[in-house]
Amino acid sequence: MDIALVGIGKIAVDQHVPSLKGSSDWDLAATVSRSGTVEGVEAFTSFDEMLEARPEIRVVSLCLPPVPRFDYAAKALAAGRHVMLEKPPGATLAECIALEEMARDKGLSIYATWHSREADKVAPAKAWLADKTLKSLHVTWREDVRRWHPGQDWIFEAGGLGVFDPGINALSIVTEILPDPIHLQSATLSFPENRQAPIAADLAFFHPGGARVTCDFDFRQEGEQTWSMEARCEEGTLLLTNGGGNMYIDGEEQGEHHSGLDGEYPRLYAKMAELVRSGGIDMDLRPLRHAADAFLLGRRSVVEPFEF
Amino acid sequence: MDIALVGIGKIAVDQHVPSLKGSSDWDLAATVSRSGTVEGVEAFTSFDEMLEARPEIRVVSLCLPPVPRFDYAAKALAAGRHVMLEKPPGATLAECIALEEMARDKGLSIYATWHSREADKVAPAKAWLADKTLKSLHVTWREDVRRWHPGQDWIFEAGGLGVFDPGINALSIVTEILPDPIHLQSATLSFPENRQAPIAADLAFFHPGGARVTCDFDFRQEGEQTWSMEARCEEGTLLLTNGGGNMYIDGEEQGEHHSGLDGEYPRLYAKMAELVRSGGIDMDLRPLRHAADAFLLGRRSVVEPFEF
Repeated sequence: MDIALVGIGKIAVDQHVPSLKGSSDWDLAATVSRSGTVEGVEAFTSFDEMLEARPEIRVVSLCLPPVPRFDYAAKALAAGRHVMLEKPPGATLAECIALEEMARDKGLSIYATWHSREADKVAPAKAWLADKTLKSLHVTWREDVRRWHPGQDWIFEAGGLGVFDPGINALSIVTEILPDPIHLQSATLSFPENRQAPIAADLAFFHPGGARVTCDFDFRQEGEQTWSMEARCEEGTLLLTNGGGNMYIDGEEQGEHHSGLDGEYPRLYAKMAELVRSGGIDMDLRPLRHAADAFLLGRRSVVEPFEF
Repeated sequence: MDIALVGIGKIAVDQHVPSLKGSSDWDLAATVSRSGTVEGVEAFTSFDEMLEARPEIRVVSLCLPPVPRFDYAAKALAAGRHVMLEKPPGATLAECIALEEMARDKGLSIYATWHSREADKVAPAKAWLADKTLKSLHVTWREDVRRWHPGQDWIFEAGGLGVFDPGINALSIVTEILPDPIHLQSATLSFPENRQAPIAADLAFFHPGGARVTCDFDFRQEGEQTWSMEARCEEGTLLLTNGGGNMYIDGEEQGEHHSGLDGEYPRLYAKMAELVRSGGIDMDLRPLRHAADAFLLGRRSVVEPFEF
């Protein structure tokens, strides 16, 4: 199937383009970007022009920042195209629900992707936890924003999510692997004095079984970077590291050792192909809802100014 | 039907108790409160004791502040009671969804009430707008927090919603009367330097027909208090004043002139009786979702400290 990729920035170049090139489901048929291009692929600077010029492209994948994403998604659906959304699927919950309703009305597929859910050990972790009794789950998601989002000021603007931009990846894994629903009970969000989005967050969730579920998100982590979560159960301890790439049960590594995002984006595109073929919709908004709940309920603490 | 009222504060005394006393559906059979009581009604200080001592009371109405509300609602559902929730239905979206799932699993009714939707002219306004072409809707919700929430510090704590405590009433009317879905596009939230919740907010929504939908919420309004919204349509202008109690079309008053909350709570309790009889659930979370979206997306502006 032909697909158009909209927003040719870092994540598109690093992940989307190689995944599409390596896929037997997809042909990258066009790009839309103010300045980015992909060699050998027709490049548009206007989304409207692409939609008009290439009616045979039935699917668009949007990897723009969250704030402008709704307009593009709504246009694509209005033009009868299936839509795949980078995480987070939008800047607000209400717009995501509106998009889902539009897609449903038009019989189109829409997919709110959560790439971290496709990390190699997320499915095995979910399977292991399914019949265990959880005592605690602690998430440590600490990275250096200067290293992973160099100069990306939008991430600290209103709607840019701040540390919840990576943190929502952790929330997407937590909501996938835990069999029980959780909800936020208390949170502290640390806002740099000169910024509109938090640089760190501590979250504590209610769990129906009484387990302690907590998250420590921090964008100021120099040196070693940590994307891990530890689930202590009555039956043993599960540790996911490396953003879900590696898994240990009681200290013993399970399966192959992975590094980085290997396989995440290829699996997302395989799922999108499946959704389009079956006319399906996948708009699980739980990770974004927990983030919104954290902004709604969280205590705000002001911390020192941040500059890239 | 017997009903127990939990949280005997200002809103319970002013609205819930008189509405129950005036209803042919309900008998106020017990209260639960640390200090409040209602003459002639058995008073408990412990919710657990009430649930155990009075198994014949099948329905509980919760009018506690939002943060503790989940625990009470979950306990009531676990004990097989139907639940009615004051607005907002909870401190987070996720907990409201969890409650709805619990109620559904147990075949119980749960009702997220939005009292302002029951204001006298909301249904006529909805009917009038149904076939009109909206050009703009502007909400002005300006009240004096010292007058309506004297000394209620919880309203400015994390999770207390601040000016969204009354503002969510406006959002409940807007989402009821507009035929099209809207979503927040930009917002500015003004936080007093010494408080955790906003004292004022300006919101601008996307409307699928291109109308300008805006809200001006302010808790610092001395003198005249305003709870109004004006919908300009191609066919004329609708003005709701007095929190939905009065309606004008092109300046001409429609129907009887009302004052205050007359009829709102009696209608809520009549709807709850209907839900219990039919085994129904009514958990429309749109007003709370728009509030959460405003905290998620809004710019934060720091304003002068506030003391009651």
